[in-house]
Amino acid sequence: MSPQEPGLFEIIQTTRAMRQLKPDPVPDDLIDRILEAGAAAPSGGNNQTWGFIVCRDEDLKKQVQVFYKRAFDEYVLPHYESRKEAPPPGMSKAQFERQLDRVSHLTDRFHEAPVWIVACLDTGKRPPNYLSGASIYPAVQNMLLAARALGLGATLTTRHGIYGKEVDTLFGLPDGVHSYAILPVGYPVGRFGPVARGDVKSVTYRDRWGQH
Amino acid sequence: MSPQEPGLFEIIQTTRAMRQLKPDPVPDDLIDRILEAGAAAPSGGNNQTWGFIVCRDEDLKKQVQVFYKRAFDEYVLPHYESRKEAPPPGMSKAQFERQLDRVSHLTDRFHEAPVWIVACLDTGKRPPNYLSGASIYPAVQNMLLAARALGLGATLTTRHGIYGKEVDTLFGLPDGVHSYAILPVGYPVGRFGPVARGDVKSVTYRDRWGQH
Repeated sequence: MSPQEPGLFEIIQTTRAMRQLKPDPVPDDLIDRILEAGAAAPSGGNNQTWGFIVCRDEDLKKQVQVFYKRAFDEYVLPHYESRKEAPPPGMSKAQFERQLDRVSHLTDRFHEAPVWIVACLDTGKRPPNYLSGASIYPAVQNMLLAARALGLGATLTTRHGIYGKEVDTLFGLPDGVHSYAILPVGYPVGRFGPVARGDVKSVTYRDRWGQH
Repeated sequence: MSPQEPGLFEIIQTTRAMRQLKPDPVPDDLIDRILEAGAAAPSGGNNQTWGFIVCRDEDLKKQVQVFYKRAFDEYVLPHYESRKEAPPPGMSKAQFERQLDRVSHLTDRFHEAPVWIVACLDTGKRPPNYLSGASIYPAVQNMLLAARALGLGATLTTRHGIYGKEVDTLFGLPDGVHSYAILPVGYPVGRFGPVARGDVKSVTYRDRWGQH
């Protein structure tokens, strides 16, 4: 390990969703390092039936953003409103409100991120099921951690999947291939910092669900 | 970062599926560190509707292994046989054969891993869909990386999901909660080493699928 290389546990604990990004371009070699980290992840049978679209096309990003915004208005905002008094574990009401502000900001400027990485998976003739993600989200997490380690901000987003068919068509995905995540990547506004999470002990069980 | 803490990129590139495990017990504090890494992962809306079962119960593990073995005989072995001449990207036929040997070994001794971490997700009233995994597999990947960093071997397995209903009942999961992965964890037989993967450039596209 080079002395500059950041430590795993520190990176894991400070890989926050970075929803405010600068428009500055991101060098290709950093994107390559992120992709290499992604492709080191496990996948079912090591089959690696994934594909990664590096999207910088402004028109295309804008077309996708229209669906992203529509899904926000229809589903995400009402969900936040309904949860205002019951923020997630480890978050205060104020933090949850700030999260909504930033989610709203990201929604409006989704297409302005200098680069997107779109993580796709070919599930072949079988329709994707709830376990298929085991062959793509580990790669996504590796990419989020790698971006963080390289000083780049990113966010795991799946909301476009509400209009998955329309968006997959825009990205030219063939039959059997589905987009599982869009990661807007760029230099972050603001600092990396500790993630806000609940105490894992409260959701850790001994042998069977509910046993502490 | 402490000088002993391993670097992110090195860890990512050497987190192989470690399918041969020693029976030696794994200290609780190492499992706790793995779980803390898991719970730092992103989840939809930061809702963290996950739960982690730390299973050491030998009878229970054996009962689950019966389904794991059945699924091997019915689905996994035929799949490997059909793929013998076409190994995954980055693997030789010999490597793929060794993988089958180790998968077969893991199947027979699945319950002998000293500890399992079972990653579960509560999807509430909505049935889980192909995107739900975005709220649990990032946590799973964090746990695999953390285990590796702590010198512990683990493997991401989802095969039990072929008999998901039966297995979820064994773990006492309530309605709406599903197990997404079982990670057998223990001290590994053999060394950590570079993962065998294809060249990510061949599956990286510019703006739209298929464009290089």
